[in-house]
Amino acid sequence: MNPRTIDWSVYVITDAALSRGRSHLEVIEAAIRGGATVVQYREKSVSTRQMIKEGEALQELCRAHGIPLFINDRVDIALAIKADGVHVGQEDMPAVIVRRLVGPEVLIGVSAETVELARQAAAEGADYLGAGSVFATSTKADAGVPIGLDRLAAIVKAMTVPVVAIGGINTGNAADVIRAGAAGVAVVSAVVAAKDVEAATRALHWIVKSAS
Amino acid sequence: MNPRTIDWSVYVITDAALSRGRSHLEVIEAAIRGGATVVQYREKSVSTRQMIKEGEALQELCRAHGIPLFINDRVDIALAIKADGVHVGQEDMPAVIVRRLVGPEVLIGVSAETVELARQAAAEGADYLGAGSVFATSTKADAGVPIGLDRLAAIVKAMTVPVVAIGGINTGNAADVIRAGAAGVAVVSAVVAAKDVEAATRALHWIVKSAS
Repeated sequence: MNPRTIDWSVYVITDAALSRGRSHLEVIEAAIRGGATVVQYREKSVSTRQMIKEGEALQELCRAHGIPLFINDRVDIALAIKADGVHVGQEDMPAVIVRRLVGPEVLIGVSAETVELARQAAAEGADYLGAGSVFATSTKADAGVPIGLDRLAAIVKAMTVPVVAIGGINTGNAADVIRAGAAGVAVVSAVVAAKDVEAATRALHWIVKSAS
Repeated sequence: MNPRTIDWSVYVITDAALSRGRSHLEVIEAAIRGGATVVQYREKSVSTRQMIKEGEALQELCRAHGIPLFINDRVDIALAIKADGVHVGQEDMPAVIVRRLVGPEVLIGVSAETVELARQAAAEGADYLGAGSVFATSTKADAGVPIGLDRLAAIVKAMTVPVVAIGGINTGNAADVIRAGAAGVAVVSAVVAAKDVEAATRALHWIVKSAS
């Protein structure tokens, strides 16, 4: 997959604790019906064998819809299920090691909250950046101080790879994020915690496309 | 490394919660002074980046002493730090996938509590077996019903690869385990929770060598 031809508009990240008892597969099926364009499987609390099982089911679903699937943190899971990509944060495996392990074809995304970290990630082989947290968020306890729209714009300006914005994004601020230059919005709670996942995704999709 | 020429006598597994505030490196340095012959880095509660850091330090230490280092569960960490091997349980990645990811050189250990599971693991490419829990243990919440010395002996008899016994092993029962045919004893609390790690390892080492 070519990161420059991927539609990054609505990037949905799983979260078992926020999913109201629904499986990752159920949630992502509804999100895809609503217009999710990228999916990230993020799971910290089940066994490796269970992650492989859930990851395989999501990879099959996403592939059937031509949607790229990224695995959060776990390069072993990404390799085991032949995922399209892996996404790593600053406390995960450094991108330069990820690239050595996954080869040239698997896509690598890196989280960065400063221009400097974004530049370093791109130098280490990142195919896209996750910039944030843009706004305050309750989803990640360690998300840090929000970077705001100005720093998001500065990161976008410094990068040649696509930049997806993340952190506290919802229907009320998604348009601002796109106007700041983001290729798309990455969301957790705005989609997976919604009562109607499909409708929530559709609203975000419409706002992002309208602002692009 | 050839699994048949490794000295499996005293196989020490890390456990941060049981280590009395000492680092894994401190504990393993003392265990090696006491005669540990194999080390497994088992860590479930720190970030991937921290695991790479700790794993690299242990791999350097073990390599300097000619002792094999296995990484528990995390094939990505094993690949990142070029560990000698990886050890997987029945809830971790299936051995057949591990082998595909790590290639022919990295050693694979598999936990098995029945002859059937042991045979399957060997068929999938396991280089050694971890059989247990032999006795009751408080270290692993999900260890299940102890298999006892008779089943341990049955597993050893059915295998051509080395079988290391695990679960509730201490200075009081280590000799029985070796006499049942185990190539060595794998221990967590008997070593890492000891006030004097070096002395605890030395005692086990002496008992295993005397019974072999």
